[in-house]
Amino acid sequence: MEHCRKAHHSIEFKQDLIKRLNKIEGQVKGIKRMIEEDVYCDDILNQITGIRSALAGVQEKLLAGHIKTCVFDQIKEGKVEVVEELVETIRRMLR
Amino acid sequence: MEHCRKAHHSIEFKQDLIKRLNKIEGQVKGIKRMIEEDVYCDDILNQITGIRSALAGVQEKLLAGHIKTCVFDQIKEGKVEVVEELVETIRRMLR
Amino acid sequence: MEHCRKAHHSIEFKQDLIKRLNKIEGQVKGIKRMIEEDVYCDDILNQITGIRSALAGVQEKLLAGHIKTCVFDQIKEGKVEVVEELVETIRRMLR
Amino acid sequence: MEHCRKAHHSIEFKQDLIKRLNKIEGQVKGIKRMIEEDVYCDDILNQITGIRSALAGVQEKLLAGHIKTCVFDQIKEGKVEVVEELVETIRRMLR
Repeated sequence: MEHCRKAHHSIEFKQDLIKRLNKIEGQVKGIKRMIEEDVYCDDILNQITGIRSALAGVQEKLLAGHIKTCVFDQIKEGKVEVVEELVETIRRMLR
Repeated sequence: MEHCRKAHHSIEFKQDLIKRLNKIEGQVKGIKRMIEEDVYCDDILNQITGIRSALAGVQEKLLAGHIKTCVFDQIKEGKVEVVEELVETIRRMLR
Repeated sequence: MEHCRKAHHSIEFKQDLIKRLNKIEGQVKGIKRMIEEDVYCDDILNQITGIRSALAGVQEKLLAGHIKTCVFDQIKEGKVEVVEELVETIRRMLR
Repeated sequence: MEHCRKAHHSIEFKQDLIKRLNKIEGQVKGIKRMIEEDVYCDDILNQITGIRSALAGVQEKLLAGHIKTCVFDQIKEGKVEVVEELVETIRRMLR
């Protein structure tokens, strides 16, 4: 699978992901501040739930991109191994 | 519930959380770099799964601290409302 | 904690849970039928997602009832151990 | 995609799934009994966590089978739409 050990997403695709991750990074910083300022736990917990959900959103976008490009190409070339790898990645995401 | 709208965790408790969040922040930065460098999607997806799991760990620690201090105190004072709020927070965490 | 090793929910509470579980049982039977009849996997997968979500709903209701009765009572009596047990149960639910 | 609106798994594959689902059905029945007998909530909650996890196991097996047969075949035939459908199904599973 060597030829495909690199991703090749469009610039727009990558920019959207980076933008989401910048926001997530800011939210993580915000949680640190909330803890230092003794903000009520329920509010922090709900905020962290939001970050986990935003990360799941990044994963979904990335997974869709991955299946549409790399997995798709490899299946067309008959490289079945990619399916095992994909299933294993999804399995981990579900845990 | 006004008297308890602030958390009051020990310095050690807060330092442990901040330390975990610093690591998470570094991991989010790492994901951005991986995307920019076209790292293979599976590797990025697994890395994000790890971050989500680390965030769940922060939530568990925070939730335990919350129940042991604030929820505990309020229940002892007969403030039943705190239970509804707690259940709602957990409900969101489970989604 | 021996005195509280039994739940004591109202009949209405229990009937609601039993009703939900009867529906879930029927849905599990339905999945078996779908597999035997070679129904398209996507449809089965989505149906199972629905069952998992219905089970989470049962857990939420049960957890809320548990906190409001047994946990609440034990905390009022100063039995702190109940909190560790509760946190551990929630931790498992989140996995 | 009409030609593939049916699954075509081996008998062994289906038997394994049916066996798992029979066990799950028995566990759901067990939960009903536990509720009727006022078993302690923590024990019931942990039991339900186990059922949800067993259902996720069924989904993983089914998803792997689906990708290896139906998705794989359709991608080889150039039917890109299957990817959207797959991503949507996974997205729901992750919620």
